[in-house]
Amino acid sequence: MSLDVEILSTGDELLTGQVVDTNSAWLMDRLWDLGVGVSRKTLVGDDRQGLLAALRETTGRAQVVVMSGGLGPTEDDLTAECVAAAMGAPLELHEPTLQAIRERFARMGRTLTPNNEKQARVPRGATVVANRFGTAPGFIAPLGKGEVICLPGVPVEFKGLCQEVVIPRLAARLAEVPAARIVKLFGVPESHADNRMRPVMDDPRNRGVRFGYRAHWPEIHVKWTVTGPAAAAHADAILEEVRRLFGDSIWGTGKDELAQLVVARLLARGEKVAVAESCSGGMLAQVLTSVPGASAVFDLGVVAYANEMKAEVVGVPASLLQAHGAVSEPVARALAECVRQRGRATWGVGITGIAGPTGGSPDKPVGTVHLALAGPGGTEHWWRKYPGDRDRIRSTAAYDALNQLRLALR
Amino acid sequence: MSLDVEILSTGDELLTGQVVDTNSAWLMDRLWDLGVGVSRKTLVGDDRQGLLAALRETTGRAQVVVMSGGLGPTEDDLTAECVAAAMGAPLELHEPTLQAIRERFARMGRTLTPNNEKQARVPRGATVVANRFGTAPGFIAPLGKGEVICLPGVPVEFKGLCQEVVIPRLAARLAEVPAARIVKLFGVPESHADNRMRPVMDDPRNRGVRFGYRAHWPEIHVKWTVTGPAAAAHADAILEEVRRLFGDSIWGTGKDELAQLVVARLLARGEKVAVAESCSGGMLAQVLTSVPGASAVFDLGVVAYANEMKAEVVGVPASLLQAHGAVSEPVARALAECVRQRGRATWGVGITGIAGPTGGSPDKPVGTVHLALAGPGGTEHWWRKYPGDRDRIRSTAAYDALNQLRLALR
Repeated sequence: MSLDVEILSTGDELLTGQVVDTNSAWLMDRLWDLGVGVSRKTLVGDDRQGLLAALRETTGRAQVVVMSGGLGPTEDDLTAECVAAAMGAPLELHEPTLQAIRERFARMGRTLTPNNEKQARVPRGATVVANRFGTAPGFIAPLGKGEVICLPGVPVEFKGLCQEVVIPRLAARLAEVPAARIVKLFGVPESHADNRMRPVMDDPRNRGVRFGYRAHWPEIHVKWTVTGPAAAAHADAILEEVRRLFGDSIWGTGKDELAQLVVARLLARGEKVAVAESCSGGMLAQVLTSVPGASAVFDLGVVAYANEMKAEVVGVPASLLQAHGAVSEPVARALAECVRQRGRATWGVGITGIAGPTGGSPDKPVGTVHLALAGPGGTEHWWRKYPGDRDRIRSTAAYDALNQLRLALR
Repeated sequence: MSLDVEILSTGDELLTGQVVDTNSAWLMDRLWDLGVGVSRKTLVGDDRQGLLAALRETTGRAQVVVMSGGLGPTEDDLTAECVAAAMGAPLELHEPTLQAIRERFARMGRTLTPNNEKQARVPRGATVVANRFGTAPGFIAPLGKGEVICLPGVPVEFKGLCQEVVIPRLAARLAEVPAARIVKLFGVPESHADNRMRPVMDDPRNRGVRFGYRAHWPEIHVKWTVTGPAAAAHADAILEEVRRLFGDSIWGTGKDELAQLVVARLLARGEKVAVAESCSGGMLAQVLTSVPGASAVFDLGVVAYANEMKAEVVGVPASLLQAHGAVSEPVARALAECVRQRGRATWGVGITGIAGPTGGSPDKPVGTVHLALAGPGGTEHWWRKYPGDRDRIRSTAAYDALNQLRLALR
């Protein structure tokens, strides 16, 4: 059985552009994995009449409406009141919730105000959804063609309660939960990925499999869900096929993160990496050190923007810089080798290029980047020409170097 | 006269979580500056029935509906067809648009397909909005209580046409366009900002002025719009008052960006900065070098994660590290002073701290950061305890240091 789901969000801060509603896209992505489509998303302000109308319309169309926001302690928070009005039911104090709020406030050393007590009031006939991520409980109320699931709008609370309550609840109503798989690519534009995926998508054995793409610059994710008998085995068979098609362009699956993978592999091998960056300006160091525990595998990064610093601090011979220019294969190799030595690391990365918008020439246009990786077996080099603006060139360069390190660590 | 505006977006990629709709929040923010409120935002898929229903509902409520998406060349692009159906009008070929598309394709060396010709068809009675940012034109059609303005969903096209057409068009319908001002703060939590703004907001002279906040971590923006006689002078008088209230916590106004300001000031003074980072892991170097032209004011950054590298590469005396530990005032000062010397810069920044999640102690809990700024007049030091997780601690540290540099450059 399929489900018809709509999403309804409320909050003046969303309608004035103060906050971007990222909850909805996140939930839609999770529902896609279940094979559940969202037919409409509505956003209204903190306005009694508008909210009530939207509640009636959405629950009149969909079996399940997932609603976020309007459960706070202030007068602007109207969700419980409007759902009760739509149900024709009164608001009732939910004692266990009030008790939970009291305990939460006592733990935090804060005093309960009458406003906070308001958060324990839910429409009669609704089922309370306990919220261990914050103060306001959610609730589920029968309304219109089915039910409305009301959750707080704070992202950590909304996402936590979706994981704990909404997704299992919707999954339980499906005849079967599809098997979902995801592969993460680097270095393949979306249109190329789509072309290469064609034979898999057009394979008659995969009729009924849903395929989708997600662009998380500079990564591309390919997803698919399979239903039917032996769904998991079928989804895994596709994964094997996709692995054959994309080979080393696949750097991870599922919840893998590239920097985490690299740090974990270095850690497992007892190795370290040092980096010398020019055009990427510290982005590679920053991405590596964003991983908790990176200090066990990363001791040194140098952002050698000026030629003198490439020579003095990293140790690149001045003669190389003079003979070839900073954006060149010999200098990239020397950056990697010298920083490896200076940092006493197993691996050394060198990045030098032209991020733009100025500084390009016919010989070395904006986007030209030389990457090098020095390791126990010698030094490898890659000459790239990346598309895009300064930001994209810098982040692609850092990402590309990280990916080459991943490949070297297999 | 006030205007009642709704936003309608279409696109399966938005309803599957593949793409987050950032166009809407962007437009709402711009409309806020005009004093125009958006009462509802609706998102539907590429589905004829759903789109037609949403068009009828939204134009039945609002005077102006701004619609995005569904103007592409594929069969999934249904906007023109559905607007025509809602109007009870046929689609007509718009010759000048077809000609513009032909010329665009000729310039790019591409061949026109019948699908692209489809993009030149608009409902009879609609006014075409020429699109110099892409292929698909927009159009404005009378419908329901007013009109629907249909624009492409590609962000650069949507935003470009909003700036060129939608905002001037709506502004022209207002009795007057408010004067809008924005100040950008750092180091003031939103609740404190609100408290300090109270006297201004409650001042009877400012009755009718609309105030709002935007949280752009780690910045806080305070905005206000003024209508009425002498609106600009009134808005500027409030700006003076706000400057008095927040003093140095205000780092910019309008379209200012902190890193750009700092780079521009260094450039104007003919000075350079070098940075030595530990816990921020390259984030400060990365933010500084994200500004085009940063190479004129930035030669060197060192990410000295290990103590040995703080000593060997930056030049911090090993005795200091041993006596005080890496996360200490003396080491922060030495990082700033040594990197200033090593980089032959006017200014040196040192950042050392505990970003977590592990590594904290009762003496030096996670979030403890020491910042130092060495300059021609000596070295200043700041001892901080930032809230939040690893990401927030790292970015706040880098931002805080950048802000101290800004203050030193006044």
